[in-house]
Amino acid sequence: MEYSSGKEILQVTTFEGLQSYAEKNQQAILHGAVHNIRDMGNFAFIVLRIPAGLVQCVWDKSSGDQTVFDQLRPECTIELAGESHLEARAPGGVEIHVQQITLLSSPAEDFPINLSRRELGINLDTDLNNRPLTLRSGAMRARFRIQAAVVRGFREFLDANGFTDIRTPKIVGGNAEGGTNVFRLDYFGKKGFLAQSPQFYKQTMVGVFERVYEIGPVFRAEKHSTNRHLNEYISLDFEMGYIKSFTDIMDMETACLIYIFDLLRRDCARECAALGVKIPSFTEIPTVKFRDAKELIAAEYGHKIKDPYDLEPVEEQLISRYFKEKYNSELVFVTHYPVKKRPFYAKDDPEDSHFTLSFDLLFRGMEITTGGQRIHEYQEQIDKMISKGLDPEGFTNYLMIHKYGMPPHGGLGLGLERLCMKLFDDNNVRYSALFPRDLNRLEP
Amino acid sequence: MEYSSGKEILQVTTFEGLQSYAEKNQQAILHGAVHNIRDMGNFAFIVLRIPAGLVQCVWDKSSGDQTVFDQLRPECTIELAGESHLEARAPGGVEIHVQQITLLSSPAEDFPINLSRRELGINLDTDLNNRPLTLRSGAMRARFRIQAAVVRGFREFLDANGFTDIRTPKIVGGNAEGGTNVFRLDYFGKKGFLAQSPQFYKQTMVGVFERVYEIGPVFRAEKHSTNRHLNEYISLDFEMGYIKSFTDIMDMETACLIYIFDLLRRDCARECAALGVKIPSFTEIPTVKFRDAKELIAAEYGHKIKDPYDLEPVEEQLISRYFKEKYNSELVFVTHYPVKKRPFYAKDDPEDSHFTLSFDLLFRGMEITTGGQRIHEYQEQIDKMISKGLDPEGFTNYLMIHKYGMPPHGGLGLGLERLCMKLFDDNNVRYSALFPRDLNRLEP
Repeated sequence: MEYSSGKEILQVTTFEGLQSYAEKNQQAILHGAVHNIRDMGNFAFIVLRIPAGLVQCVWDKSSGDQTVFDQLRPECTIELAGESHLEARAPGGVEIHVQQITLLSSPAEDFPINLSRRELGINLDTDLNNRPLTLRSGAMRARFRIQAAVVRGFREFLDANGFTDIRTPKIVGGNAEGGTNVFRLDYFGKKGFLAQSPQFYKQTMVGVFERVYEIGPVFRAEKHSTNRHLNEYISLDFEMGYIKSFTDIMDMETACLIYIFDLLRRDCARECAALGVKIPSFTEIPTVKFRDAKELIAAEYGHKIKDPYDLEPVEEQLISRYFKEKYNSELVFVTHYPVKKRPFYAKDDPEDSHFTLSFDLLFRGMEITTGGQRIHEYQEQIDKMISKGLDPEGFTNYLMIHKYGMPPHGGLGLGLERLCMKLFDDNNVRYSALFPRDLNRLEP
Repeated sequence: MEYSSGKEILQVTTFEGLQSYAEKNQQAILHGAVHNIRDMGNFAFIVLRIPAGLVQCVWDKSSGDQTVFDQLRPECTIELAGESHLEARAPGGVEIHVQQITLLSSPAEDFPINLSRRELGINLDTDLNNRPLTLRSGAMRARFRIQAAVVRGFREFLDANGFTDIRTPKIVGGNAEGGTNVFRLDYFGKKGFLAQSPQFYKQTMVGVFERVYEIGPVFRAEKHSTNRHLNEYISLDFEMGYIKSFTDIMDMETACLIYIFDLLRRDCARECAALGVKIPSFTEIPTVKFRDAKELIAAEYGHKIKDPYDLEPVEEQLISRYFKEKYNSELVFVTHYPVKKRPFYAKDDPEDSHFTLSFDLLFRGMEITTGGQRIHEYQEQIDKMISKGLDPEGFTNYLMIHKYGMPPHGGLGLGLERLCMKLFDDNNVRYSALFPRDLNRLEP
């Protein structure tokens, strides 16, 4: 009988591993893709791409068999044997003096993009059409290594604070939030929709676990194409019970972001340096009421208030500018949004029923989070639905939680790609999604 | 200016916190939902539900104000102040002698289910109709705490082994695997589909990061209703490059499952005990070729081979039974599935081109994983598509990776709900999805 054993799993090449080869004077065995080759005459640099980055390998043409070297082209995959030397100037702190090369695979055609350039020098559309290839560039790899770390930070922080990780359905039966921006599908003869958010489910799960989070795709059939909208994106959601004020949710987000940014400083220093990412450093985030924010920027920048119920993108930029200039903060919570612009589950401010106990978080000029306290009492929720012109009969499953008991609670949704876009100082959110979905793009 | 500070975030009640109150002789402040009340005459047990479990609280009727106590019903949410005492016989090792109760919220109607019973005593359909409520039971909470830990184990193991966490689109442009079991939607006038797996994307990302994993929903429009199928489920996928054999993938899964099960033993002892979960303990998993497995059970159990190309559910059960009886293993890898039943990207066995370098993992009588080595050479992939009756023209985006270079690679998809179903010894996979989607069920 043969067995699969968990004892000897295939090792991945890491900089730490290569450094340890160097320290032990052992022959290094490593594998990866040929990122590029720089021929220097008597010798050549073979730049090898491994998960963590690029490894500088030196091939001395006067030694060894030239046959394999002559076959190498970018995107060949190879295994190398050689001496590993600590070399502070090389990426990852090591340089490999190659003794032997084994060719594992070769591309059928020459790679059409020069990945060794710092900027690929192609426009966004060409980039997107060729994402399976452009993702192999250093800048794109750095972006998605950082994105993975952002997600890990969100998760680690919430795990450590008593939240339970949940997974809720993305095909839903009700057009939950009553919006028009919803994708429809035929579900075995029934009307199905793609979830615009896990809102109802995460509230439901507060009744089960008190604190929950979900990291998953949400779907918005918005028909406008902007640099900050995706039709499918990743929402980092959490929801928590037993809050004493809606500001508890903002405090939790503040602490969570501090944790995430510290984690990036610690674990993604190489990627952040490669992209020139400036990670915000702060211990608190200023808060301003929606109404006051409008007036502040009207007074400070002469901006005329057109829509008293919502913030235009330019207003988000001006508010961010104001808090950067006056308080040196790159983040600002705007609180107490008008009832008119918030959904039916938002809890009204008991001190002024035109406003809600809600907030957005602006980061470098753009909204990245929407959150707030939710209604937890049954009759209050029924009344608010009616005042919003909704029929409570259409929400029987959701209202089950209000009818049978819920703690005071609230939560938020943080758009992963938007947070990353601002972190990377990109001008388009499409650089923060591996394979973005927009009005015109469904592939690759 | 007001600030949101990350310094004092709202604490959640934990058993560790309550034990520390007891040890320091401090007054304990805690909150939670009233799970049930047991009136003992002069005193009453208030069983409080907190994220980690149930806390035994004792209310002495002769002391303090009875007004609030008299209002308590199951699913009221409350804050309590009292003395915490270490009490080995109580769940979580503590008992609270209540001094004060603050009522935070009350249900509008009495809770229709008695959550204090070990078994809810309702049928599956009633359970599913009332999932927002039945999830508050001890058994369901234990299931989804364990499920969260399974996901965490998968992630931690892969993070530690050089894998990068990715997120790929769920709305896709091509009916990728050519199957009929796909949900269709209108995507701004284009034909869109819900992804049946992240197959193409995770292979693409092997070219970028060498090792990747994704944890996300997949969608199968299968029109049959069984106890082991869901139309939306969570797939734990990983894909890895530079494999020397397809058995490297099985080794990685074996090590990953060992890690997950060890984590459950360590972090979910209470939940596993509550459900009576028997966690498998092993250091290796036997493997058997598809063809041999068919013959073994034919010989051993007189099972007649009907379909030589695929395993029927009853055959999966018999193979599992065989390896349990002969090798005392609850898991078995079945390898080398026929070309006919494997998708066009499966790599053929060079030793016998009727079979593929692929495997399923059976756990307690059911397939929970499908995996294998993929074709990485361009011409080989083109040829196989044609031999399968597919037009390579329809796969231009996917074939980009083969054309421009890929390492030898492979991976697998592990069905989260199925793994949990077998772990929990449930007779239906619907107990392992918070809000399952099946042929007849789109809500709640």
